[in-house]
Amino acid sequence: MSFGDLAHLGHVELLTPEPERSVRFFVDGLGMEAEAADGQSVFLRGYGDYQRYSLKLTEAEEPGLGHLAIRARSPEALERRVAAIEAAGRGIGWIESDLGHGRAYRFTDPDGHVFELYHEVEQYEPPEHLRPVLRNQPQRFTGRGAAVNRLDHVNLLAVDVADCRTFATDVLGYRHYEGIVLDDGTESGAWLSLSIAAHELIYVADARHARGRLHHIAFWVDTREEVLRAADLLIEHLVPIEFAPSKHTISQGFFLYVFEPGGNRVEITSGGYFVYDPEREPVLWTQAERSRGQAWEVETVESFHYYGTPPAHEDDRAYAARSREAMPKP
Amino acid sequence: MSFGDLAHLGHVELLTPEPERSVRFFVDGLGMEAEAADGQSVFLRGYGDYQRYSLKLTEAEEPGLGHLAIRARSPEALERRVAAIEAAGRGIGWIESDLGHGRAYRFTDPDGHVFELYHEVEQYEPPEHLRPVLRNQPQRFTGRGAAVNRLDHVNLLAVDVADCRTFATDVLGYRHYEGIVLDDGTESGAWLSLSIAAHELIYVADARHARGRLHHIAFWVDTREEVLRAADLLIEHLVPIEFAPSKHTISQGFFLYVFEPGGNRVEITSGGYFVYDPEREPVLWTQAERSRGQAWEVETVESFHYYGTPPAHEDDRAYAARSREAMPKP
Amino acid sequence: MSFGDLAHLGHVELLTPEPERSVRFFVDGLGMEAEAADGQSVFLRGYGDYQRYSLKLTEAEEPGLGHLAIRARSPEALERRVAAIEAAGRGIGWIESDLGHGRAYRFTDPDGHVFELYHEVEQYEPPEHLRPVLRNQPQRFTGRGAAVNRLDHVNLLAVDVADCRTFATDVLGYRHYEGIVLDDGTESGAWLSLSIAAHELIYVADARHARGRLHHIAFWVDTREEVLRAADLLIEHLVPIEFAPSKHTISQGFFLYVFEPGGNRVEITSGGYFVYDPEREPVLWTQAERSRGQAWEVETVESFHYYGTPPAHEDDRAYAARSREAMPKP
Amino acid sequence: MSFGDLAHLGHVELLTPEPERSVRFFVDGLGMEAEAADGQSVFLRGYGDYQRYSLKLTEAEEPGLGHLAIRARSPEALERRVAAIEAAGRGIGWIESDLGHGRAYRFTDPDGHVFELYHEVEQYEPPEHLRPVLRNQPQRFTGRGAAVNRLDHVNLLAVDVADCRTFATDVLGYRHYEGIVLDDGTESGAWLSLSIAAHELIYVADARHARGRLHHIAFWVDTREEVLRAADLLIEHLVPIEFAPSKHTISQGFFLYVFEPGGNRVEITSGGYFVYDPEREPVLWTQAERSRGQAWEVETVESFHYYGTPPAHEDDRAYAARSREAMPKP
Repeated sequence: MSFGDLAHLGHVELLTPEPERSVRFFVDGLGMEAEAADGQSVFLRGYGDYQRYSLKLTEAEEPGLGHLAIRARSPEALERRVAAIEAAGRGIGWIESDLGHGRAYRFTDPDGHVFELYHEVEQYEPPEHLRPVLRNQPQRFTGRGAAVNRLDHVNLLAVDVADCRTFATDVLGYRHYEGIVLDDGTESGAWLSLSIAAHELIYVADARHARGRLHHIAFWVDTREEVLRAADLLIEHLVPIEFAPSKHTISQGFFLYVFEPGGNRVEITSGGYFVYDPEREPVLWTQAERSRGQAWEVETVESFHYYGTPPAHEDDRAYAARSREAMPKP
Repeated sequence: MSFGDLAHLGHVELLTPEPERSVRFFVDGLGMEAEAADGQSVFLRGYGDYQRYSLKLTEAEEPGLGHLAIRARSPEALERRVAAIEAAGRGIGWIESDLGHGRAYRFTDPDGHVFELYHEVEQYEPPEHLRPVLRNQPQRFTGRGAAVNRLDHVNLLAVDVADCRTFATDVLGYRHYEGIVLDDGTESGAWLSLSIAAHELIYVADARHARGRLHHIAFWVDTREEVLRAADLLIEHLVPIEFAPSKHTISQGFFLYVFEPGGNRVEITSGGYFVYDPEREPVLWTQAERSRGQAWEVETVESFHYYGTPPAHEDDRAYAARSREAMPKP
Repeated sequence: MSFGDLAHLGHVELLTPEPERSVRFFVDGLGMEAEAADGQSVFLRGYGDYQRYSLKLTEAEEPGLGHLAIRARSPEALERRVAAIEAAGRGIGWIESDLGHGRAYRFTDPDGHVFELYHEVEQYEPPEHLRPVLRNQPQRFTGRGAAVNRLDHVNLLAVDVADCRTFATDVLGYRHYEGIVLDDGTESGAWLSLSIAAHELIYVADARHARGRLHHIAFWVDTREEVLRAADLLIEHLVPIEFAPSKHTISQGFFLYVFEPGGNRVEITSGGYFVYDPEREPVLWTQAERSRGQAWEVETVESFHYYGTPPAHEDDRAYAARSREAMPKP
Repeated sequence: MSFGDLAHLGHVELLTPEPERSVRFFVDGLGMEAEAADGQSVFLRGYGDYQRYSLKLTEAEEPGLGHLAIRARSPEALERRVAAIEAAGRGIGWIESDLGHGRAYRFTDPDGHVFELYHEVEQYEPPEHLRPVLRNQPQRFTGRGAAVNRLDHVNLLAVDVADCRTFATDVLGYRHYEGIVLDDGTESGAWLSLSIAAHELIYVADARHARGRLHHIAFWVDTREEVLRAADLLIEHLVPIEFAPSKHTISQGFFLYVFEPGGNRVEITSGGYFVYDPEREPVLWTQAERSRGQAWEVETVESFHYYGTPPAHEDDRAYAARSREAMPKP
């Protein structure tokens, strides 16, 4: 059994065609700190991230996911997972290191998203002006913008959800907590975790049948009240809200979905429940249940069902362009 | 100027064809206390109501508003307002008294809704099991159900909003804080208050062009978090949610709209702002602004635009019937 | 009856021997905007204040209250109250105007605190970068620091509380909602309001038997959760907390008390209840009831009972000095 | 390395000399469900507990801990931990089973508290009236009382904290996230976890130098706002509050401490942070840091430092008696 080799989602690399405005969104809007910059990338962190960063923002022609990186629990655990990935024929190979962490192993999931595994990290050392009053907190709570605490999870679009889910559970050691199975037996969503948190990695069927796309990345705030506050605040920054604060049925997470200026969907999330049962059977939702909307009978907004990055259809590109223009140039 | 003669909305009489199930909704779902019963009526109160009740629930063939009652600030203030109403030709006459208050003057607004004015009241005396620990609170906080604090406001549908609004400001002394004016100059909504609270009485254009109908009555809870909790709780009671928790543009009130088993729309509300400016000019919203949805760009649900009680169209009746069936028989 | 002539607390002038650091506290810590500066004064506002400012911060040798200003409901109401004040022998005279408002009448309460009454005001016009998305809000919600909404109330120390309370109710038209009466019949606290809000002006007995002192000024945030957030944030700014977030028995307000760098006590408050009853009898608390602590049996911190500004005893001065040193120089 | 063999705290057995009133406290006050009764015990659950119960309440002469039970991740994990415990010389032996779980292994920690390990469990099946609307929740959210979600953690008093902590980490596989080390090198507190949650098991030095005592058990609610609501509600039930809602420095948990009628201390908790770092070094607090009070400079109440159950001193017994009398007989 592979459970326990991987510790947690370490960071995400997000691609943006609007690097300046995207940085402004994450720094002023979400309240993250720009910890470092290197070439075309800026490295950002929430006040609760114990590593140097959880978001690498990289300039690119199109929005989307660069890669996502998972921290292994130990050097041996890292080796074990690399061996399993290679056995599954999905390996790419080692890269020497990146800012804040040691050597990392690159591979792809069955849908083509690029993943990395690593173990060695630099602990974050706050500069003087970000030193916290409470030593059990990595960084000062500045309260700026939505003041997100840390990276929470990533939601990936996939052509074959069952295939990706099986890879995640059998090769990487994720646990499968919730899912959607359509009437024809197709698995159209899978909620996966490395911990008691209800999800850290999600796969959802790509309505455009494209590969390697991103649905959204999510940052954590501590209360539902802070999600509401984020909505109050982000409209003042002219950030386009796609899906206003409400509660998901799956995972019971409280959400707010917006678009960052590069066109990627970003969630501010809180709430949900913990899975303590080590033998938890996944809760599988039916097509009929899904048709009832979210937890409080809120209908899911249309774009949520098809839009991902990079856009895979001219409608998506038009949609993304509108989002990009909402937030004024600096 | 008549400002100051009327103190506040005292109570509402709600008609229900499902009296047993409606009582159960208000007692178990909203957490109100049944303070008294008389004939076909049950009198209910929130834990923060200083009078004996704020809701009179009366069995009737169809749902809707029985009457709404406003407390005058003094016996003299009552006489002054009665004289003004009679001068406006809208008076009906005095009734001797009702549970918990002295004689009252009945009249109609220009749309035909029945109002009462009264001054003398009985202070609420809690029975032993409802005696509060803090003496500045009328009743124990039981925490049952959504645990609403008190009646907050009433929203009435009207064929001619401008006419009703003018009656409310010029004859009753309400202040006009916000409104909607369509491109053709029609006034389609008016938010009125007797205090610094952003609204106590609302008129909205009746899409069915019927008279004397009710849009909703609203009960106050102290925080947005309690509105969310009400949604979590009411779905467990199988109460149909019409419009899930979100934030209004007008008044910035945080809302949750549900249907009680009789078919009337009920809001659980919190938040909003105070109007301290004694010379406040109403904030008038345009048709274009209204088309942008609620405060966080949430689209208003369709039924919210036309449904009121009593139903005025066969579509409404079908809609009401569905609502009524959602909550199981006791 | 004078009820209704005065509309609300307009602004407070606070004296500080540490003007630069005090400005930094109100701007960075409480999230207010510096709307203007004039001579030794800076004028500050919360995002919900409809006037240009609610706080005038003036450099002085010692901390304390400069004056507090109340807005009359109309020019006639202003004249009526001035006549009453003059009849009571407490008038000082008219001043021409100050930033943001027209001519004002100065007087003192029986304890010697300086008050002003005025009617004419400038409406606040936000600069481009502070223009709100929702037009029913005076200014953009920036979310900076504790992001206080508006000035809420002032608490004054007085040698003879009964005398001040009588002046406030009989001459100014305040309503008396709650109070404290000791076993020997002395009135040691009075909670007064011009509206349905549970308090706008408070008098509390001065344990130092000094005259004209300030206990605290209070700013409003919309939820208890925001008061907690303010505590989390202000400790990161090294602001000294005197009395951590909890709930008062009187008025049931949720509180956080801190010291601004000049040594004045500042409250961040939310919650409490509305007084709708126009005939409300004051709820008077006994000595025995007061000894039970605050609403959740929290003991009141010692300094809360004696410390006010300006300090009136060498112990107070030492206490103030410690507070002043807590927050580092800019 | 033993990390990962044990999954989570399964349940606690609490002893009470006031069984009827204790049941009423947990059912009416905390909103738990009485799932079963057997002999002198009642088995209780929060709405989020996936097992049948998390609290076994057993009549006894004195309050205190009966035992605490931890669920192993698998049958093999259970065998491994039992072997380690036996090797450490702390085993007692197997018991056949108890309500809701299969055979269990009994042992003591170095301070003499009784523990059990088990693996097999019955999944909870809600009766009709407790069936939830959302299938990923074990039971209906009733909202009754403080409506606690689930058992969160246990805090045990110990004569030798270092000894107990070492047993927990080295033999049971707990992770050590935070601690207190006095100036003389004595370890006086240890915060331990089996997951990313900041604590599941806490050891604190027993000021009475007695063995096997309980400091408190804690139940989780989802928001800080719900902790505040619990305080509002429990005072209405005349439950004695020991330590009103505030924020701990260690773990940053938000707390409320009360006494149940049997005399045991019970916490309602929320908040805190997650420990994602698999190589986390414990954050060790010094004596000087501890003297600064809790997170917002709130001084810890005196009884919190010495009182535990069973009482170990005549002062404790007097204290417990007062608590017991606060809540009226049914």
